[in-house]
Parts: sequence; structure tokens; C-alpha cells
Amino acid sequence: MKNSVNRELPADLMEKLNYQGFESTEIGHPEIQRVAPKVHVSTGDDKVVDSVADVVKATVKDGMTISFHHHFRNGDFVFNQVMRAIIDAGIKNLTLAPSSLTGVMNDMVIEAIKAGTITNITSSGMRGSLGDFVSHGGLANPVIFRSHGNRARAIEHGDIKIDVAFLGVPNADRLGNANGMAGKAVFGSLGYALMDAQYANQVVLLTDNLVAYPNTPASIKQTQVDYVVKVDQVGDPDKIGSGATRFTKDPKELKIAQTVNDVIVNSPYFKNGFSFQTGSGGAALAVTRYLRQAMLDNQIKASFALGGITKPTTDLLEEGLVDKVMDVQDFDKGAAASMHANPNQQEIDASWYADPDNKGAMVDQLDVAILSALEIDTHFNVNVMSGSDGVIRGAIGGHQDAATAKLTIISAPLVRGRLATIVPEVTTVVTPGDSIDVVVTEYGIAINPRRQDLVKALSNVPGVPVYTIEELQQLAEKKVGQPQPLEFTDRTVALIEYRDGTIIDSIKAVKD
Amino acid sequence: MKNSVNRELPADLMEKLNYQGFESTEIGHPEIQRVAPKVHVSTGDDKVVDSVADVVKATVKDGMTISFHHHFRNGDFVFNQVMRAIIDAGIKNLTLAPSSLTGVMNDMVIEAIKAGTITNITSSGMRGSLGDFVSHGGLANPVIFRSHGNRARAIEHGDIKIDVAFLGVPNADRLGNANGMAGKAVFGSLGYALMDAQYANQVVLLTDNLVAYPNTPASIKQTQVDYVVKVDQVGDPDKIGSGATRFTKDPKELKIAQTVNDVIVNSPYFKNGFSFQTGSGGAALAVTRYLRQAMLDNQIKASFALGGITKPTTDLLEEGLVDKVMDVQDFDKGAAASMHANPNQQEIDASWYADPDNKGAMVDQLDVAILSALEIDTHFNVNVMSGSDGVIRGAIGGHQDAATAKLTIISAPLVRGRLATIVPEVTTVVTPGDSIDVVVTEYGIAINPRRQDLVKALSNVPGVPVYTIEELQQLAEKKVGQPQPLEFTDRTVALIEYRDGTIIDSIKAVKD
Repeated sequence: MKNSVNRELPADLMEKLNYQGFESTEIGHPEIQRVAPKVHVSTGDDKVVDSVADVVKATVKDGMTISFHHHFRNGDFVFNQVMRAIIDAGIKNLTLAPSSLTGVMNDMVIEAIKAGTITNITSSGMRGSLGDFVSHGGLANPVIFRSHGNRARAIEHGDIKIDVAFLGVPNADRLGNANGMAGKAVFGSLGYALMDAQYANQVVLLTDNLVAYPNTPASIKQTQVDYVVKVDQVGDPDKIGSGATRFTKDPKELKIAQTVNDVIVNSPYFKNGFSFQTGSGGAALAVTRYLRQAMLDNQIKASFALGGITKPTTDLLEEGLVDKVMDVQDFDKGAAASMHANPNQQEIDASWYADPDNKGAMVDQLDVAILSALEIDTHFNVNVMSGSDGVIRGAIGGHQDAATAKLTIISAPLVRGRLATIVPEVTTVVTPGDSIDVVVTEYGIAINPRRQDLVKALSNVPGVPVYTIEELQQLAEKKVGQPQPLEFTDRTVALIEYRDGTIIDSIKAVKD
Repeated sequence: MKNSVNRELPADLMEKLNYQGFESTEIGHPEIQRVAPKVHVSTGDDKVVDSVADVVKATVKDGMTISFHHHFRNGDFVFNQVMRAIIDAGIKNLTLAPSSLTGVMNDMVIEAIKAGTITNITSSGMRGSLGDFVSHGGLANPVIFRSHGNRARAIEHGDIKIDVAFLGVPNADRLGNANGMAGKAVFGSLGYALMDAQYANQVVLLTDNLVAYPNTPASIKQTQVDYVVKVDQVGDPDKIGSGATRFTKDPKELKIAQTVNDVIVNSPYFKNGFSFQTGSGGAALAVTRYLRQAMLDNQIKASFALGGITKPTTDLLEEGLVDKVMDVQDFDKGAAASMHANPNQQEIDASWYADPDNKGAMVDQLDVAILSALEIDTHFNVNVMSGSDGVIRGAIGGHQDAATAKLTIISAPLVRGRLATIVPEVTTVVTPGDSIDVVVTEYGIAINPRRQDLVKALSNVPGVPVYTIEELQQLAEKKVGQPQPLEFTDRTVALIEYRDGTIIDSIKAVKD
């Protein structure tokens, strides 16, 4: 069977897991019965537990679904402590359903798979040794990849039923009131973890900072929490930030950022009250810098900035160039600190951010989204999941979600080293071309022919040559040649859901 | 059948409505499957509706359960507008399930009952003409009275399934992000309404103040809201406050307040980090004033103040005598304004406040609660619902909930006019004597014999004579004589739930 982006899907798995193939980016108006957790009633006086091993014994049983958040990113000290205790307790057959997996968790996940502790995984992404391990067939069952908004949808539908959520926090009181804003290992918004706190049957907080009761502001509430575990350290503050806190000096990245800005400024969306999501990384920071200048020059203010937030974005808030920052995660210390200080930086959960089965999510109101890509094809389909060698090394993140913006810009170099970014067909379709409007490279831009309004608006912008996507692909091919076709086995190692829960693509095991 | 407070319950209704009789104030550790709403999926772009009549037509059908909040109290302009439209649309057989009913709603409710529009009611209370109407048999089905915490429990269990919630707010954006803190008719915390916003299948906001998107802080979120109706005025700011914003000058009330303070100060709970709920009304304000002085004199600070909040309580927050104010509703403008300005005044929903089937509610952590009474009997049972003439004229409010405090004080005059407050048997048991510790009158106090520790602690406080409850009852009887026994018909007009959903008492129609 093929879906509407022409991907052959594994019929056996589709049937076994009761999946439909991707059809359309339109969500429509279904009526959805949401689900709710079981509550173990207590007065809350006995929540504090000293040992991770004890709380694991009290909560985790064979066959359960357990979850974590990834707000600590590579500074996470929580995941490995909990998984160590779970493996040591001899628990088997778990489904691991974190908001995402970061590199620091890889070795432990592989050990847990080998021990039979983890037999299923759903995640936003995976990279490094774990991606390699899965792509070589290390996990018997296919990984299910979901965007942040889709994870929220799946939790609210009951597609993901979390039995126990283990959530690290930089502060909590003895009943579990907690936030991400104060303590040693602050990360700001708890956006992804708020889903787990609301929907998991059992919620375990881990903290290195037990504060006086009642703790406020309470992003996670005592009514959601079963146990509070005091640990030595929940995270390494220096590794929580995404790293890129300085503007890039790479001339190619600067050129792309400048062009992204030119596209925005010359689009019909650049007007008072517009909204945007820029994302993280050095290039995104550069876009924010150019955009700031353009806003000053044109006396234009934004109504909100969305998504993963960086300090340059909260600086715009301080400066009055942005009215509100809607914050599902923070990528650096500056952004995290700002949430504490500024009431106009609103913490939002992943459902509010991007659940498509909602009464309106933030992404539905988004004017401009700037997104990255590992590959883009001539149908504008985007791959952010597998490398050009076919190995899993990415994450959907909010990619499919933010791509619903009125103006979705893919910012990517035409080639990376000896590899083309713009290709005849992407290795894995993650975000369908229907939701992509403009591709920006260092050589020029390509506009999705669906958007003749943008073709018109952007055809005469000085310094911004417009190509067809085929022309850009051919230019790339001319520079780096045609690669050998990838060879895969027949075995499916991962399914990629579109944000509505249909299957947009699958990933096969690579040939050794 | 009789329950554990010796009340004869109507067997036919108990069976028909599948109720158990009240047994114990202990909640235990049940496992509860919570419920969740249906969601009508949309991008949220078409939520704004101009006419109340249109939104009623789009949402309300015969037989549904509809809800309102009572945060505007007697300044409410929302309830009557919506009910007018519902009656005029000819809709029948509705269950009315507001957080409570205030006097300004009475005429409209009676009209709706007479029209067959409303056939069932559950509320925290009712007063005036509506209480009279129901007590004289005006509603065919019995009213179900529930405390604020029990309403939260009932909603989270699915005992109350709200089809449409109509929630007035002093500000909202076009997608429904709203709070109670800014605008003309501010009331501060949206605590009770947050339950409706989270659990109703359809949520309609009414506002006179449509603000720029996205509106923050969002106590109610766009993900919860289906429609936003712009109306001329949601409330009369001058009637939202409870009225009593000055300290009483009544010597009897001052004497009682002073004695309440003496009881608190000489109890084992008056120490650094203690917590309290004082409630509203002139006497409560006086208690807060005395308590403030005692805290200053003894260099004692409270960890939190809870419940319905007044300006004297937020003044303690400003002064540093209270660390946190946990705020489910505000009784005056000062308290409402303070929530906007002070991050240590945390808005809490009714579940967090007091749902007994929870992972710990605020009331479970409460040291001292000061509550009022219409009647107290020699078993320490308290009536806050029916008058000495047997007519419904009260509200449970948070009475049963806050009575779970470690030290629950009933503050009441021994007699009111020609009526005894302390009686052999209360007309209606609302809060069981098991959860009452001390009764304070202008003549002295009575301590529940269950609390020998308090008998010991409070036996030698200068100026605080200790009586048995029987002695206080006899003293009252001596002053005002023995009333004629009340005469009721056999017809049950109301059932009083205890906070766990069992029936603690019923109310019969009065004889004309």
C-alpha cells in the first residue's frame, strides 16, 4: 500500500497496529473522546521517598509504559538513574515513551533493550549510537516516531497510555508542586512534561531541591503527583542549554539567515501583530537578529513568538518588539530565567502548542515558521529523521506541527560536504511538501507552486534569486554528483506518524 | 435507613439515584478512574459569536447539563442573559449544575423551573426566594447539594457530566484565553470555573472585554474553549465583592473573633509554618486582624492561607506574615487585584483546593479552619443549609472540605435574636461532628470530647471559659426557650451529599 506522499508502507505492520496511511495535512473537525488517568487517592502526606529503587519497585511492573521528558537535554541525570534501577529490578517488556531521547540516554537505552527491559519505543527522535543500533535492527518492534504535537494528541486519545511518568524537576515541595524555573538545573518551561503530569496514572518527581510547602508557581501540581524522590543532582546546568548561544559567523549560514529574513519581510505576513517560530541553533539565532532589525526599521511588532525559545527571542520581549512569548521549551539559560521574570512569557503545554485534535493550538495561529531539514525533495517533502546513509539520526520535534504555519520556510544549505540537501526523493518523508511554502538555500530560494501568491510577492526581491525546486536539486546534483542508491533490508525498524496519527513513512533496517 | 449521623434517609431516592448513606469522614485510598470531555476539533478561528441566542442554539439541547460559576456573586450579569436565551429557545429538561447560585439568579431559576426548562439542580447552595420555592416543593426532583470540593470530585468522577459550561470572564481573546484579573468586572481567581473549563464537553466564554491574542496569563486556555461571546457587560464591579470589607464593630462579633484567636494561639498548631483558612464576613476579617497581631507578637509566620481570600489576608502576604496565598476565590477587589501583582498568590482550582478523591488537596494540609454555622448540635454536627424554619437558605461552600483541618473552629453566636444556634439536634446535618473540634461563642467555647489534647491545651486560657457542648446548648435554651418542633411533609426536596458523594442528610418540603 502507498500513502498520498507515494510511500510504500509495510502492510503487515499497518494492519497489526491498526494504522491508516497519511492522506492530508487537513485535520478537519472530528469529535474526539479524550481519556483520563486513574488516581490513587491519598492525602499526600507520604509522597517523599528516598530511593529511586524503592519508587521503581512501588510503581513499575512488567509490560507497562513509562515516560520521561527531555527538558534537561544532554544535561539529564534523571533518565539513567531511573533506568538503572528498572533494569536492576529485572523488569521486562516496557514501552519507553519519553518526549524525546537525547544522546546522554543512548547507552542506557541500548542496555535496557538488550536486557529485555525495553521492547517498545515511541519518541520524537533518536541520534548517535541508539539511532545506529535501531537502524541495524537492534529492537524487535518498530520505533514509533511522533512530533511533539502528535505525542500530545496520542496521550490525549489514549494511543499512548502512560503508567508511570518519571519527571525530573529543579524544585518541588513534599507534595509535588514544582516548576522548571528555580534551582540549580533550571530549564524553564515544563511544556512537554505537563502532558505526562496530567495524563499518567502515576507520576514520580525526582528533584535535588526539596523546597517549603506550598511551592509556587506550580507548573506541575500536587494533585498530579504520587511520589517525590530526593536525588543528589537532577542535571548538569552547563549541558542543559543547546550550546548555540552565539550568532553564527559562518558566511553560508549568515547568507541563508539573511535570505530567510528577506523572504519574511517581503511576504504578506510581515505586518503588525504577526507571529513567528524561529527554533534553535546558530542560524536560527541569526534569523532572529535580522528579524529584529527589520522590525525596528519597519516599526512592526509581533503579537507572539512560539516554540522552543532562545534568549534572543526573550530579548525581543524585553524590548517590546514581541508582545508575548508562548513557551513550550527553552533552549538556553537566558530564556529559562526570563520566564521566571516576565509574565508575558507564558508556559504552554505540548497540547496547547501543537495538538492537532484540539480546540485550536498555537501552531494553528502561527504566521511564520522557520524550520530546518536534513533533506528536501522536489515535492517539497522534508526529512529530519534519517541521514543520507539511511541511519536514524534526527527528531521530528515540532517540525510537522509548526509547518502548519501560513508561511513555512525551510532553511538549509544546498549541499552539506559531499551530500546534496535538495534531492529527487527524500530518504524518509517526515513533513509533507503540502505544508512547506519556501525553501531557502545560500544560492537562492524555491517556492512551492501551490503558493502562487508567494511566487508573486517574492519574485523581485533584490538579492533573492528564485528557482524552481527542480533547478535547486539539479544545482546540488551538479555540485556533488549522484549518490549510490541506499540499500535497505525488508525489515521495518521505525514508523513515522504524521501529526494526526496516520503513517507518513517507515524506515527499514540498513544493510550491513 | 439511617446513616452514621443518625439521619433517616429517603429509601426510594437512595435506591433510585444509587446513593450510599454517609459513614465516615475518612476517605481512605480508593483508586478512581477519572473522566474526560469530548473535544470538537477546530483550528479555533471561528470562535467569536455575537449573540447569546446564537451560541445557545449551537450548543444546548433538551436534557443536557449546563453550568455556570458564581465568581461574580451578586454582580453577575451572565447567568440571567444565558438563561433568558435558553428559556426563550424553548429548551426543556435541563440539569443546572453551577458552582453555586446567588440571589441575583433566583427569579430566573424559578422562571426556568416553571417553564420546564430546568428540571434538576445541583449546587453548593441557594438562598432567598429560590430556597423558599424549592422548600415549598417547587421543583419536582430533589436538589443535590455539594460542597466545592465535592463538586470537583463529582465532575472528575463523571457524576456531574457538563454538556455546556457558560463562563463569564472580565477578559478573553478570540480563541478563549482568559483570566479573572483584568478588565472592568474583575473577581480574581477563577478557581471554581477551572473545573468546568477542563471537564465540560463544550465551553462558552462570555466577556465584555475582547483583548489581543494571545491573552496571558491564561487561567482558562484556548484548548478548552469552543465559543467566545462578546456581551455588553459581564458584571457589576460594585456587587462582586462580598460587601464586608470593614472590620465589624459589633461587640459580640469582636468577642467571638477574639476568642477564636485565643483558641488558635493556645493550640498546638500556632507555630512557624502553620496554615489557616478564615473565610469571609466581618467576623472573619476581625479574626484575621487579631491573628495578625498574635503573629507579630509571637514572631510566627504562616506557610499559607487558603480558601476564599480577602484583602486583610493578602495584606498579610504583602507584610511577609504569610508565605503563600492559595486562592480558589476572592471575596473583594483588594484580594483580586493582589493576585495579579503577587506571584505568591497562586490561583488553584476547586480540585486542588478540596477534592477528597485526589493525590492530596490543599485542605488535607490545613492546620486551622474557622467556619460559621446556622446551627450546631450537641454531637457537634453543623447545619449551614436550612433555617430554623426548615427552609433552605444557605450553602455548603467549602464547609465540609475545610472542616478536615487539624483544628476546625466553628465561630457562632450562642443565640441569634430569639433563636438558639446551639441546639439538641440540627435541622439539617451538613458537616459531621467528627470533623469539628472547637465551637466558639461569645460566652465561651466547647471542645469536641474526641479531642482530649485540645481540652488539655485550652483549659486554662485566661478569658476563655470552657463548657461542654451540652452546657452551651442548655445556656442557649435558657435564653430563648424551646422552639416548637418543625413540621415537614414527606416529600424530599433536597439531598445533602457529604464530600465523598454519600448522603449525609435530606431536606423535606415544609408544611405551608
